[in-house]
Amino acid sequence: MAVSVDGGQVRNKQVLVKEFFSGFPKDSDMLFTTSSINLKLPEGSNGVLVKNLYLSCDPYIQYLMSKPSLPSNIDSVQPGSPIRGLGVSKVIDSRNQNFREGDLVWGLTGWEEYSVISSPGYLFKIQHTDLPLSYYTGILGMPGMTAYAGFYEVCAPKKGETVFVSAASGAVGQLVGQFAKLMGCYVVGSAGSKEKVDLLKSKFGFDEAFNYKEEPNLDAALKRYFPEGIDVYFDNVGGKMLDAVLLNMRIRGRISLCGMMSQYNLDRPEGVQNLFNLIPKRIRMEGFVVTDHYHLYDKFLEMVIPLIKEGKIVYVEDIVEGIENAPSALIGLFHGRNVGKQVVVVDSQ
Amino acid sequence: MAVSVDGGQVRNKQVLVKEFFSGFPKDSDMLFTTSSINLKLPEGSNGVLVKNLYLSCDPYIQYLMSKPSLPSNIDSVQPGSPIRGLGVSKVIDSRNQNFREGDLVWGLTGWEEYSVISSPGYLFKIQHTDLPLSYYTGILGMPGMTAYAGFYEVCAPKKGETVFVSAASGAVGQLVGQFAKLMGCYVVGSAGSKEKVDLLKSKFGFDEAFNYKEEPNLDAALKRYFPEGIDVYFDNVGGKMLDAVLLNMRIRGRISLCGMMSQYNLDRPEGVQNLFNLIPKRIRMEGFVVTDHYHLYDKFLEMVIPLIKEGKIVYVEDIVEGIENAPSALIGLFHGRNVGKQVVVVDSQ
Repeated sequence: MAVSVDGGQVRNKQVLVKEFFSGFPKDSDMLFTTSSINLKLPEGSNGVLVKNLYLSCDPYIQYLMSKPSLPSNIDSVQPGSPIRGLGVSKVIDSRNQNFREGDLVWGLTGWEEYSVISSPGYLFKIQHTDLPLSYYTGILGMPGMTAYAGFYEVCAPKKGETVFVSAASGAVGQLVGQFAKLMGCYVVGSAGSKEKVDLLKSKFGFDEAFNYKEEPNLDAALKRYFPEGIDVYFDNVGGKMLDAVLLNMRIRGRISLCGMMSQYNLDRPEGVQNLFNLIPKRIRMEGFVVTDHYHLYDKFLEMVIPLIKEGKIVYVEDIVEGIENAPSALIGLFHGRNVGKQVVVVDSQ
Repeated sequence: MAVSVDGGQVRNKQVLVKEFFSGFPKDSDMLFTTSSINLKLPEGSNGVLVKNLYLSCDPYIQYLMSKPSLPSNIDSVQPGSPIRGLGVSKVIDSRNQNFREGDLVWGLTGWEEYSVISSPGYLFKIQHTDLPLSYYTGILGMPGMTAYAGFYEVCAPKKGETVFVSAASGAVGQLVGQFAKLMGCYVVGSAGSKEKVDLLKSKFGFDEAFNYKEEPNLDAALKRYFPEGIDVYFDNVGGKMLDAVLLNMRIRGRISLCGMMSQYNLDRPEGVQNLFNLIPKRIRMEGFVVTDHYHLYDKFLEMVIPLIKEGKIVYVEDIVEGIENAPSALIGLFHGRNVGKQVVVVDSQ
């Protein structure tokens, strides 16, 4: 193996996309392998070379690794390449004027120990290092901004309104619920296990929470928790839950569509039948993509960092050690096995 | 029959709701009858007594006459009462300070020759009488305001955008298309017959139009007319057309939901499967009710009356003579038999 004169070849453990994901990711969709990498960027590069510290398991990875069919703001990954996703990394070498060796960053990287990021457009320099770095895969990173933009910007909530959050113990949901409580809303969350439901009530301060798997009639469950109806629905799951919510929305309610986890494993999406309700109830339903809102990132950090430090917002992570365990962590996410934000530690420094 | 001393009993032909509508209205849901009415309001009334001149056949009548299940801004009608709907009327007697004998009005009235309107909250005095009075059932009334509010307020269109309108030759659709053309948009409409499609192109100036009944694949039809996708969809039909549109929306598109004509005859609404598209495409889908926008009515008339007089907006009515023909006109509306706005003449003065 040739060793470059100005750098050095090192081992690079990687998780590759074996084939396009179809439905929930499976073991056979991914390949754990070891290659090598030169730790010096070539002349003429405009990129950065990073050592990945934490990798983030997020539902949208399923979308990124699927055969491209819809317009997206991030290009789909081709089979044979490392899985792409968000992570926290340290800059090892930089030929980009915005980054220097030693910088801590978060953004789009590869599922491997070291990544070359040729066009570091989706890479944020980490300025505040007095909170755990892994938080930048969650509450201080994309999921945090997703909760912030989706709740404050898209849902336009008002004090005293009733708020429902699905997949409420996830990275985004737990934060949406806490934002809503801080605003003086009545907040109910749904999740898929007793443990998560307990967490919602005891740790995150939701007024109520329920296990959707134990509710044979979601409409009845929602009527129980929202006898006067729902003003704001933060939807992470789509499908049957969305359909039941449509029967329970209040006039001038707002639904922000953040993801449709319940639909990603279906060949054909479930039909949503209760859309007519949007008309007499004058409901606004809106999809959003967090990257449209990153101009608010500094404002978001200004708000959320003090709240975390003061203990007014809490945050739960589900941490897995070792990149070789990343595939099973990702698979587990789609089966609701994680409790809190799913993070993979590649190396803690 | 007792004749009142201060008024006089006169014949009052009526169309009653025989039973709650279920699905499209049928002959057997309505009863044509003749009763009598005293043309003087009793002491203590705060209402008006009107002679109805024109009655308006609108899709929402199906909703008003159905068993109440959803919140609405207008109370549902009970079986045995006259069908309620919008009309143009002349005030015969008034005990309400806002109206005087001889006033021409439009608003919510009964399907009968004479109606007592006890609380005339939804009654507008007609100020401009230099256009046909029947226009106040359509372009100058609720359907006109629906097109105006739904297009300008809800769709927030921009010059040069691509606009699709379903049920485009109807009272609302024909106006939405013309508004969009005046704004410099590319406009395509769908309708259910060759005659209507011809009208859209030759009379209303749509750039393109197609007969949805002759399109085995609505997605393919939309791709043909919108190779670059749809910015604005003004939805009057819901169901399969909405589902196909969701596959063809552009990023940051807007869908205003005005009605779901395709669903009113189904026991169980069709499922809409392509909602996921709302997320990566950041689409806003919003239902609206015209009554929320009546504060803009004067502004609307200021805009639209000169345009009609200058021939820059044209308007097509489908006029049926005689209240006894109102039931079949209403039924015909739900089968797309009308060409243009369906109006029933009760008496022209």
